[in-house]
Amino acid sequence: MEIKKRIMTENPLNAEPPITALRSWLTPNEAFFNRNQGAIPSEPIDIKQWRLKITGEIKKEVELTFDDILEMPKVVVANTFECSGNSRSLLKEKAPGNPWTIGGVANVIWTGVNLKDVLMMAGLTDKSNHVAFEGFGRPVGGSGVEFIRSIPIDKAMDSTILAYEMNGEPLPNPHGYPMRALPLGWYGANSVKWLNKIIVKEHPYEGYFMDKAYRIFQKGQDPKTGEVVTEIKLKSIITKPLNGDILKRGRILISGMAYAGSHTIEAIWLSYDRGNTWHECQFTGPNQKYSWRQWQYLWDVETSGDYTIVSKAKDSKGNEQSLQGKWNAHGYCNNGILDHAIKITIL
Amino acid sequence: MEIKKRIMTENPLNAEPPITALRSWLTPNEAFFNRNQGAIPSEPIDIKQWRLKITGEIKKEVELTFDDILEMPKVVVANTFECSGNSRSLLKEKAPGNPWTIGGVANVIWTGVNLKDVLMMAGLTDKSNHVAFEGFGRPVGGSGVEFIRSIPIDKAMDSTILAYEMNGEPLPNPHGYPMRALPLGWYGANSVKWLNKIIVKEHPYEGYFMDKAYRIFQKGQDPKTGEVVTEIKLKSIITKPLNGDILKRGRILISGMAYAGSHTIEAIWLSYDRGNTWHECQFTGPNQKYSWRQWQYLWDVETSGDYTIVSKAKDSKGNEQSLQGKWNAHGYCNNGILDHAIKITIL
Repeated sequence: MEIKKRIMTENPLNAEPPITALRSWLTPNEAFFNRNQGAIPSEPIDIKQWRLKITGEIKKEVELTFDDILEMPKVVVANTFECSGNSRSLLKEKAPGNPWTIGGVANVIWTGVNLKDVLMMAGLTDKSNHVAFEGFGRPVGGSGVEFIRSIPIDKAMDSTILAYEMNGEPLPNPHGYPMRALPLGWYGANSVKWLNKIIVKEHPYEGYFMDKAYRIFQKGQDPKTGEVVTEIKLKSIITKPLNGDILKRGRILISGMAYAGSHTIEAIWLSYDRGNTWHECQFTGPNQKYSWRQWQYLWDVETSGDYTIVSKAKDSKGNEQSLQGKWNAHGYCNNGILDHAIKITIL
Repeated sequence: MEIKKRIMTENPLNAEPPITALRSWLTPNEAFFNRNQGAIPSEPIDIKQWRLKITGEIKKEVELTFDDILEMPKVVVANTFECSGNSRSLLKEKAPGNPWTIGGVANVIWTGVNLKDVLMMAGLTDKSNHVAFEGFGRPVGGSGVEFIRSIPIDKAMDSTILAYEMNGEPLPNPHGYPMRALPLGWYGANSVKWLNKIIVKEHPYEGYFMDKAYRIFQKGQDPKTGEVVTEIKLKSIITKPLNGDILKRGRILISGMAYAGSHTIEAIWLSYDRGNTWHECQFTGPNQKYSWRQWQYLWDVETSGDYTIVSKAKDSKGNEQSLQGKWNAHGYCNNGILDHAIKITIL
């Protein structure tokens, strides 16, 4: 399958697939968006040379080869993966950053090992509070700043995998070959690619990508006081029809996806009058923790005109999407209903 | 991912991937085996011209476009798919047919619609006992014989889908674009590719591929009195190490798959003394109806020598694999333990 992505920046590579590529429950590797802070390794890392080191606030340092990893129990899990900047360009008030539409999301079957199993080899101490991930250690864009992220120990021990396959294939080089950290249900920023070092820490890792970027803060606020971008927020997208489509009266199929990090989707509604009245949609396909849920609505439309279509999801915690995404200085986590409106014309 | 398949016949195309391609729970489309009785359409079928006709012992004839299909509720299901001739070449006594080793199997996420939903549009009668599938109507190999198969109405109404996507992509042309019948958990012979006609019948379809081929019978027996090849039989395969591998003493990872049609796998054992003593293996990865289950065993081996390794699975019905596959005239459904032995040398 050939996918022509929309390239936002060439170097580093940031690109999203067309929305038509988001119509299947499983996202093929070719359709997986590209999000990079720095350069992709020019050659795939040599698997024979590659090592995973576990160091820091642990009982004993561990160094694993790829063969060691293959001997550990496999985890195979479908997980929806989203860039926290996804839908940024749809915010009412613009924010700086890559102008994602809705293509910064994918649902993939990942194979890996539990991070917990690796941490248990090293042994935790009473200072093992955070787990930092370091990969392919080049300073981002030659700036001297390394892309290192840490997550709390609870998430690390509960539902984080070290992934080495996407959809039954080794991780493609642009997506982190041979291994990336993958906190399940969390935004992509926490998923360090080309992973080679795990540093267990007493306090969260400090650095540009923990303290300045990937925080929810307002203009003028100290970024470090803002909330860190972690679990994917409840959101729904319409992937058919497309914005601007001109369709004939009659039966129209509207379909899309909804997702909510580690929560499942309980209900989804559609409105074709900007959110005044809502109609319950039908789910189609799997309902699995960490994975998006596919939905559709058959709309019998008799009156020509311009329509604005929006969707609203409810998750297993009882949350419902709000009408507008909450603006923040970097435009993260936009999950607003009206921000994702689709405008179509019925003839 | 590039997969170099072993081609058994070029025209029609029959080919199996290397065993290394069977080490992931999800089989990428490129690794899916090829099994054909006749020619693959030289051009993908024109989706605008394509129709699915439902005819025969029904209340009213139905003709659906591909857009009609897309409006129906989607089913997304992981299903292990096996050629009934798979492992034929491993039988002790040879049987005629393509000499499959163990590569005629794949586990794929399929998207489609329930056949039941299509049949309900047509309406069943008290003569609706069997459902025949016809596709891309060229006589097989110019012989005048069409590849048409029928399945009983119970299977058709309960767990058969009309699949139009594999792993999130449209069915590749060699695998039946735009649609194939897919009785879940059944051998591939029942999955007619390039589907365009469904004929509901009072009696099973009669023809070469129902009466002579895909029946379990002995030499000299009338094939038509033999059992039809339907549900995939309980089986396990070892995909690592490979037959003939020479390995160093120490810890050796042995891994593979086990599957049982619509039943799940309850237990799996490994023997490295030809089945005299058995050791329980660890499951790794998903446990889903219709899908194979991945397993592994860590073998600490201290003594050099030649070893014969075999695996044995038990399914949710309590069945256990038998030591040797039951021979039949066409060599179908070989699921014998010893037939799948792996011979390795430990230095």
